[in-house]
Amino acid sequence: MPQQRGEETRGRILDAAVRKFAIAGYDAASVDDICAEAGVSKGAFYHHFPSKQAVFLALMNGWLSMINMGIDAVRKDTVPETLVEMTNLLPGVFAAAEDRMPMFLEFWLQASRDEKIWQAVIAPYRHYQERFTKLVQEGIAEGSLKPVEPQIAAQVIVSLAVGLVLQGVLDPHSADWAKVAEQSMQILMNGLAKN
Amino acid sequence: MPQQRGEETRGRILDAAVRKFAIAGYDAASVDDICAEAGVSKGAFYHHFPSKQAVFLALMNGWLSMINMGIDAVRKDTVPETLVEMTNLLPGVFAAAEDRMPMFLEFWLQASRDEKIWQAVIAPYRHYQERFTKLVQEGIAEGSLKPVEPQIAAQVIVSLAVGLVLQGVLDPHSADWAKVAEQSMQILMNGLAKN
Repeated sequence: MPQQRGEETRGRILDAAVRKFAIAGYDAASVDDICAEAGVSKGAFYHHFPSKQAVFLALMNGWLSMINMGIDAVRKDTVPETLVEMTNLLPGVFAAAEDRMPMFLEFWLQASRDEKIWQAVIAPYRHYQERFTKLVQEGIAEGSLKPVEPQIAAQVIVSLAVGLVLQGVLDPHSADWAKVAEQSMQILMNGLAKN
Repeated sequence: MPQQRGEETRGRILDAAVRKFAIAGYDAASVDDICAEAGVSKGAFYHHFPSKQAVFLALMNGWLSMINMGIDAVRKDTVPETLVEMTNLLPGVFAAAEDRMPMFLEFWLQASRDEKIWQAVIAPYRHYQERFTKLVQEGIAEGSLKPVEPQIAAQVIVSLAVGLVLQGVLDPHSADWAKVAEQSMQILMNGLAKN
């Protein structure tokens, strides 16, 4: 089963890259280091990934897909209930982000210096913006949300989530972030939902 | 006037460090590079700063003091009005952060690997947490805010601000961030303020 073996090799490369990036940093970890850690040849590496940057993007996209699947799976009776329920996803996001945080920071750093990488970093974030704009529009249409400007309300939700994730990752023990996230969204809904 | 000359030298070192960190990165920029850029001797450098890390911390603290002074200067009749007024500080924060962002990201990266640096990064953030907890307590006492849990409400405000700053710096042209900030705080106040 060559395809299955291929998937397994790809997974081994990704796991090895996470470990190497976390310990040595993105810049210092070479393709050779990742191959040695994964126990694969350079030929196998380049069969799956054109570059080290491609490995990084695959890791980031994997993390973002996980969040997207989580968001898409949440569906309660009304939009305000759906939004509060979504905060239960955050502990999982924190857990998955924690050991990858140095890697993400290093990538953002490169993004701030390189237009092409910046585009790759900013695209998924803009996707969340659109996703939540639609959800707010649904809430207004179903009558559960006040007739606010959907884009602004979506930006508040995304800003709050970004801020919560950043704080939860950088300062995990200063608060019960799952509780903070749920109560934060509740306060926001007090301002957005029709009573 | 030796003290004045000392201050001037210190300022020249800080300005040179900003330029060097931005171009070469924190790791790659050496004390020698910073001295050459500033046109000062190594002796003068070490008279003012024990290390390159100390220069970085001075730059970060300068930025944070500027924000603190801004926050302390805002005072309207009620706490909700004060909070909405404070969002006018954000464009200045964005402007000051933009060319320093690579440097901050690099420092957070090091913070994620070094307990001592992490403490230096996390301290000012915890300070904002306390600052806004007190402001919310004032609002409840004066009767302008609902009797919410002050710490949670403060965390919502700080999370929103952190999220807005991060987005405004990483994606400055996707929105009018000053407008978004003011409208976001207004939505939050709809949920927090007594009508």
